[in-house]
Amino acid sequence: MSELIAIVGATGAVGREALSILEQRKFPAHRIVALASARSAGSRVSYNGGEITIQELTAASFAGVKVSIFCATSGISKQFAPIAMKAGSHVVDNSSAFRMDPAVPLVVPEVNPEAIPRGTSTPLLIANPNCSTIIMLMAIHPLHKRFGVEHATVSTYQAVSGAGAAAMDELREQAAASLAGAPVIAKVFDEQCAFNVFSHNSAVDVETGLNVEETKLIKETHKIWNSDKVTITPTCIRVPVYRAHSESIALRLATAVTEQQVREAFVNQPGVRVLDDRAGNKFPTPLKTAGGDDVWVGRIRVDPAAGFDASGRSRHWCLWVCGDQLRKGAAQNAIQIADLL
Amino acid sequence: MSELIAIVGATGAVGREALSILEQRKFPAHRIVALASARSAGSRVSYNGGEITIQELTAASFAGVKVSIFCATSGISKQFAPIAMKAGSHVVDNSSAFRMDPAVPLVVPEVNPEAIPRGTSTPLLIANPNCSTIIMLMAIHPLHKRFGVEHATVSTYQAVSGAGAAAMDELREQAAASLAGAPVIAKVFDEQCAFNVFSHNSAVDVETGLNVEETKLIKETHKIWNSDKVTITPTCIRVPVYRAHSESIALRLATAVTEQQVREAFVNQPGVRVLDDRAGNKFPTPLKTAGGDDVWVGRIRVDPAAGFDASGRSRHWCLWVCGDQLRKGAAQNAIQIADLL
Repeated sequence: MSELIAIVGATGAVGREALSILEQRKFPAHRIVALASARSAGSRVSYNGGEITIQELTAASFAGVKVSIFCATSGISKQFAPIAMKAGSHVVDNSSAFRMDPAVPLVVPEVNPEAIPRGTSTPLLIANPNCSTIIMLMAIHPLHKRFGVEHATVSTYQAVSGAGAAAMDELREQAAASLAGAPVIAKVFDEQCAFNVFSHNSAVDVETGLNVEETKLIKETHKIWNSDKVTITPTCIRVPVYRAHSESIALRLATAVTEQQVREAFVNQPGVRVLDDRAGNKFPTPLKTAGGDDVWVGRIRVDPAAGFDASGRSRHWCLWVCGDQLRKGAAQNAIQIADLL
Repeated sequence: MSELIAIVGATGAVGREALSILEQRKFPAHRIVALASARSAGSRVSYNGGEITIQELTAASFAGVKVSIFCATSGISKQFAPIAMKAGSHVVDNSSAFRMDPAVPLVVPEVNPEAIPRGTSTPLLIANPNCSTIIMLMAIHPLHKRFGVEHATVSTYQAVSGAGAAAMDELREQAAASLAGAPVIAKVFDEQCAFNVFSHNSAVDVETGLNVEETKLIKETHKIWNSDKVTITPTCIRVPVYRAHSESIALRLATAVTEQQVREAFVNQPGVRVLDDRAGNKFPTPLKTAGGDDVWVGRIRVDPAAGFDASGRSRHWCLWVCGDQLRKGAAQNAIQIADLL
């Protein structure tokens, strides 16, 4: 194969991660078109012992490109995705630009690969879901498939990386300033992120009180599961962690099941890893998850508010889930979609 | 009044906070007996422009003391609380030693002041609840009183201060090491606390999967509300924050109410402050709460999984709550109890 793959926004947090995943896969450098704004054009990033030169994103960037992975803003996706497709490239879009477009499949490869049309010769546009949605669904889809998830209450502990590389720098700079007793400057977030937690920085609907991140969790789950029957109670919170998200999830299933049935649902589940050592108090953490592609599940337990029925079954379960926002929550999921194309 | 107040464990995180609260109240230094282990005896802490000398905790420490506030370990409380009471002192105990003892009232002054016996001349022992319980109940009791709380799903974002002053130092040291690229050393917690979150460090029951912190939230709420009818789905998590806890709470009420009714329940509620600016994305954070005595409530919204009924009412509500673990979660609550004695 000598087809080209384009990374749009190659200097951003997700773009860099996409390059790092391609590097781990020994994908040849000469088949990568690394695109960014004019400001970054000409700069070099190290890759497989060599270097890749960043090119300016223009309408002419997509000639001969088979798949373009967009890792930039919604604005860039809206402007350049149609251009890339006209040039014959499939597009996998990490932004929120097309996620809720009924004509655009929204895909987690382990959950709904069937949403990608097969056997068409025209370039496809596939949207990559929001990171919190991907990480939640990786953990609860195995249960949904077998037992039906009716309701999920989810509180997130989201890394700053979801707001990009600048947010990760801000966490570092604020922590250093705080430790030095110097003034802490907030630029990316309105709230101090170092040594603090705060309600997600996305806009809050003044009518419903939900922020955009919480609305995404609900709407994207409905679209990916192709059903709006599941109800979700989301609370999205930022924590001072660099790059992996965590989620506290309480589920109501359609069917009462044993703890063994719940645990068995995660066995041999691609992309899912269980760490659930009650005696040793060892469970998933964002640090353990960071840099890897698995979503980790632990604290698997019956909801004490419901307990077991007489047959040792329950419809109510709790989980603690961690996954790298930049990997499975973004770049890795996008590259998995590219693999399917 | 010339009665003495004793602070047992005056050099610990909660003990220091208790002294700081007394200082703010201009409580005279000569009426404070500051007690700690032999190791700290003789050291001085600044107080109201002067100094207080730490004395060694012994069986003779409680002569003439009216109220002793225990801010040390359960072991110290078990050993010295009976001695203090024999010497004629009331005891307010911050440890978990006596909380579940049916003979010992467990009190949040804004919630169940009536649990403190009146008109007895014998010294009383009153237990101070766990920090997460106090902070949750301060926020949900106003709703419980009016509308009945049937079920609460709570995920915590707990500061390291709950594990004492050494844990706060550990967060500082780990953050500095991490920023310097040096090895991060974990002593107080098994998991790295800087730039990480992790399941609460208390022991996990291998049968139920609940940790001790989660069990406290359930059992202490039942005791304080004097009813085990409310069911609780708790997940307790540590976050890299120095001293204030946050909690994401979803409630099912017995009665369907309007949003206005929910908001009115918090008006003029002593110890509760609402910050809920949807348009400005301004909500409670642990940093805003730190050093103060109020529990802050925000993100007040109907649970989108349930929504409103035709009359604009709902039984399902979500809240985001922050409170200083060392103040209202410990020292302040204890001193308020001492006031009632």
